[in-house]
Amino acid sequence: GTPLGTATMASSRAFFSSHSRRAFGVAAAAIGVPAALPLVAPSSWALSDAPPAEREKLLILGSGWGAVACLKNIDAKLYDVSVVSPRNYFLNTPLLPGVTVGTVEARSLIEPTRRLLPGAPGDARFFEAAATSVDAKNKTVVCRDESDVQSVNPEFSLRYDKLVIAVGSPCNTFGTPGVREHAVFLKEVDDALRIRTKLADLLETASLPGVSDTEQKDMLSVVVVGGGPTGVEFAAEMHDFLTEDVPKLYPSVKDKVSITLVQSADHILNTYDKRISQYAAEKFKRDGIDVITGARVLSVSKDAVCVMDKRTKQKKNQEIRRVRLEHRARQARVCRFRAKAVEPKPEAPRARDGRAPARARRGGRLRHRGLRGREECGFE
Amino acid sequence: GTPLGTATMASSRAFFSSHSRRAFGVAAAAIGVPAALPLVAPSSWALSDAPPAEREKLLILGSGWGAVACLKNIDAKLYDVSVVSPRNYFLNTPLLPGVTVGTVEARSLIEPTRRLLPGAPGDARFFEAAATSVDAKNKTVVCRDESDVQSVNPEFSLRYDKLVIAVGSPCNTFGTPGVREHAVFLKEVDDALRIRTKLADLLETASLPGVSDTEQKDMLSVVVVGGGPTGVEFAAEMHDFLTEDVPKLYPSVKDKVSITLVQSADHILNTYDKRISQYAAEKFKRDGIDVITGARVLSVSKDAVCVMDKRTKQKKNQEIRRVRLEHRARQARVCRFRAKAVEPKPEAPRARDGRAPARARRGGRLRHRGLRGREECGFE
Repeated sequence: GTPLGTATMASSRAFFSSHSRRAFGVAAAAIGVPAALPLVAPSSWALSDAPPAEREKLLILGSGWGAVACLKNIDAKLYDVSVVSPRNYFLNTPLLPGVTVGTVEARSLIEPTRRLLPGAPGDARFFEAAATSVDAKNKTVVCRDESDVQSVNPEFSLRYDKLVIAVGSPCNTFGTPGVREHAVFLKEVDDALRIRTKLADLLETASLPGVSDTEQKDMLSVVVVGGGPTGVEFAAEMHDFLTEDVPKLYPSVKDKVSITLVQSADHILNTYDKRISQYAAEKFKRDGIDVITGARVLSVSKDAVCVMDKRTKQKKNQEIRRVRLEHRARQARVCRFRAKAVEPKPEAPRARDGRAPARARRGGRLRHRGLRGREECGFE
Repeated sequence: GTPLGTATMASSRAFFSSHSRRAFGVAAAAIGVPAALPLVAPSSWALSDAPPAEREKLLILGSGWGAVACLKNIDAKLYDVSVVSPRNYFLNTPLLPGVTVGTVEARSLIEPTRRLLPGAPGDARFFEAAATSVDAKNKTVVCRDESDVQSVNPEFSLRYDKLVIAVGSPCNTFGTPGVREHAVFLKEVDDALRIRTKLADLLETASLPGVSDTEQKDMLSVVVVGGGPTGVEFAAEMHDFLTEDVPKLYPSVKDKVSITLVQSADHILNTYDKRISQYAAEKFKRDGIDVITGARVLSVSKDAVCVMDKRTKQKKNQEIRRVRLEHRARQARVCRFRAKAVEPKPEAPRARDGRAPARARRGGRLRHRGLRGREECGFE
């Protein structure tokens, strides 16, 4: 456990998951439905034994916090619910940092979307696919199975009366060169497992004969970019792992590991209460975690992070040679009823105001006032 | 749980593993040690604080059943122990079938090799690398780090007084065309996870709108090749998964899944007591698992397994269209002291006799009489 982590596991029951990696995208403007597609009309809904629906068709795109909050508050008697997402599970993202060092098993953070559907079994449906286009005029969404196993025709269409777009957003690199190529994000299960695998590999390689002291230190220099909850939690997990497990498993390199946290603002956890922020900073200082505040990452290469001090404009490049960069994950917070066709920009800025949906459109992203992220998406 | 599985989990403690996929190979004849390699001489062993070793250097290649049995019986006071393996953990293989459907979590079948080392911490060493050649004359093994993260010089050499080769063997395809390309093996952790991912993907795709009844049945036809303990255990796990989990999670396709077990001999579990064999066959019949005995797999393609009835010589090809083939795993049983340089053939037949090591050489594989596999490798 980390000094800052207080949340408990969402669910520890066994789950059978595909851990799909496909990005979820809703394409540009309405393009109409190709004539050849098997349009799923009201009568062909009947995957369940439920009577032909007189209810309004509610179609939800996505399976994250927004979609789950919506599913938890929907009355299956009023709506005929379908969910489409390329990921067939909900992921309890705040505990993801623990997966990177093995504190928490990935599967315990996961809940199958099918188990979250409202009503009796068969009342609502889930389809593992990506939504590729929305035809708002004809109230139709074209979907496509983008997984490895596909049927003869991987494309299909779904009609809706009401549409919820809760597809989330990709990690924001803020346009920093080299991040996509050389850094590891921490947003999905696969990201966390990638970090775990890489960390093990680095420790194993550093423990081999003939590796110089300098090379060991370079290899085991971990740089975390982002002093928000994800970055701070990850740095804390890393520290616990280094003090509790590494001395037993990798005694020859236990003193060679260093953790550096790069924060753009002038203190970490700057959106939290000042006392929490101070406590974390002091704890990190005692723990030997090097916190660089007021610093901007200019670029990332295979072996180095180039950091600029925002006050002095001085660049540092030599100090951090081997990089394992951890980028701040962004919560998916987008949800909207009666959506128009929208184009989510890959790196659109997050809407920060709390205004009504009609006014909350920022850079192509939509946000529903009732769904502001995990605080309001209580998940048992 | 499966009706036939009685073993309990080896260990459920959290483990930080690299799940390395690299094959482990000991190359052909002794090729001598390149001059440029950093030969690890007695004095440079000192990664631990142990006094310079007067003990004989025991070098163990591998981290499976053979290597672990050896580690458990070695006195660290008598030997200076080093272990080299591209996989940094021991895998409790008999429970692997449970991982394919989520009954058992992969990490609970794993124990870090470093935790199995004899003596006090630091007394013995582990190196994550592949042994690439043995120089029996100079008693030296050349090793190479074949993982993603490598140091400047990924090659190093280790000297030994006694050498244990316990590197295991690859899965035997018996030369059947198409097996490597289209089948999934069940020997390593990654194999089990691959089956789990694929199974989820098949169920998700079959549940999409517009997939015909025939296509669903083709897609969900699981063919298990090999009626030994691994194949039988996997078929039983699949059956339990289909009756317990699939109806809840995938109600629309629950009746479309079929399991076929292909066995070469005239009954399954033919190396076990006849009553066990009969019980399993009857249970499978009640469960609706289709067991084809006396059948040889001639070839495997993307969508079909070609099976020949060994008595009538009749070929069946049409019945099984979509293939998810499960190949019998072979236990690593190779162990030898004072080894000569050997060339393990990739698909060498297993030595079946119990004779002394000097006589047990079959097709290039070596076997130590004291180590006959899991029965004698009690692992707590």
